[in-house]
Amino acid sequence: MRILGIDPGYALVGYGLIDYDGYTPKIVDYGVISTPKEETLPNRLYVIYKTLKKIIEVYKPDVVSIEELFYFKNQKTIIPVAEARGVIVLTCKECGLDVYEYTPLQIKQALTGVGRAEKQQVQFMVKTLLGLDKIPKPDDAADAVAAALCHSQISPKINFNKL
Amino acid sequence: MRILGIDPGYALVGYGLIDYDGYTPKIVDYGVISTPKEETLPNRLYVIYKTLKKIIEVYKPDVVSIEELFYFKNQKTIIPVAEARGVIVLTCKECGLDVYEYTPLQIKQALTGVGRAEKQQVQFMVKTLLGLDKIPKPDDAADAVAAALCHSQISPKINFNKL
Repeated sequence: MRILGIDPGYALVGYGLIDYDGYTPKIVDYGVISTPKEETLPNRLYVIYKTLKKIIEVYKPDVVSIEELFYFKNQKTIIPVAEARGVIVLTCKECGLDVYEYTPLQIKQALTGVGRAEKQQVQFMVKTLLGLDKIPKPDDAADAVAAALCHSQISPKINFNKL
Repeated sequence: MRILGIDPGYALVGYGLIDYDGYTPKIVDYGVISTPKEETLPNRLYVIYKTLKKIIEVYKPDVVSIEELFYFKNQKTIIPVAEARGVIVLTCKECGLDVYEYTPLQIKQALTGVGRAEKQQVQFMVKTLLGLDKIPKPDDAADAVAAALCHSQISPKINFNKL
């Protein structure tokens, strides 16, 4: 199973792809889609749409795992971030992919065993579980890989996070 | 100029089309895109995307006028509404349309001369300006027509609301 993890954002969308055979997760690729600050909202959303489509075409993931948003976190940016997340979910749906969503707490819990784990602990586990030389950079890419890993850990057990 | 006004929403997206020759606005059509409650987020966003595309194909508007969102209004629903708004803006962009956004205050001001006007006053002006027999129903459709009328009133004067 190839899992595309996504950390939703407006200026930066993190993505991370892993292959999971039920035993060992393996990294495929990770990175960020960045949208130009000087561009308009429609143009930035369009960049996300087109680039994500390209990533899906190239890597052909089986499922998508995306972080859930909460309005009390980053109230100032919640509207554009949610607008971008809507576009991301639509793009995956248009490509025929099932989308699963996980709360930040579920992701931390799945990777570290602790729901209130620090960002550094989660990033350390991303590196360790995948046998990487270094932590994926930037943070948005590491968060996206964490979302993919969370799905690999949780999905065999429960199935209620499907959007 | 044919203006497509949109009242962004998740369960209901209002739309209203008017023709404006610089003197008298004329109604073309209005209505709502409704998404099934029992459906998943990706499916509901996809319904909005496909239906809006169809509306644009059928009516061929020149520009789009859409209401701006504020997080302090409807905190509970702001995330799905913003997700839907992202999809709406993307759809318009994909169809090659310019998108303008207006605050609720600008819309009220443009239609009634009063930024703090009541909903009933705005709806009365929608009916009056377009010479309609009755106020468009539901409210989402009336709000969408109001957004279209706002653009017809404001756009010849200023041009800074383009997204």
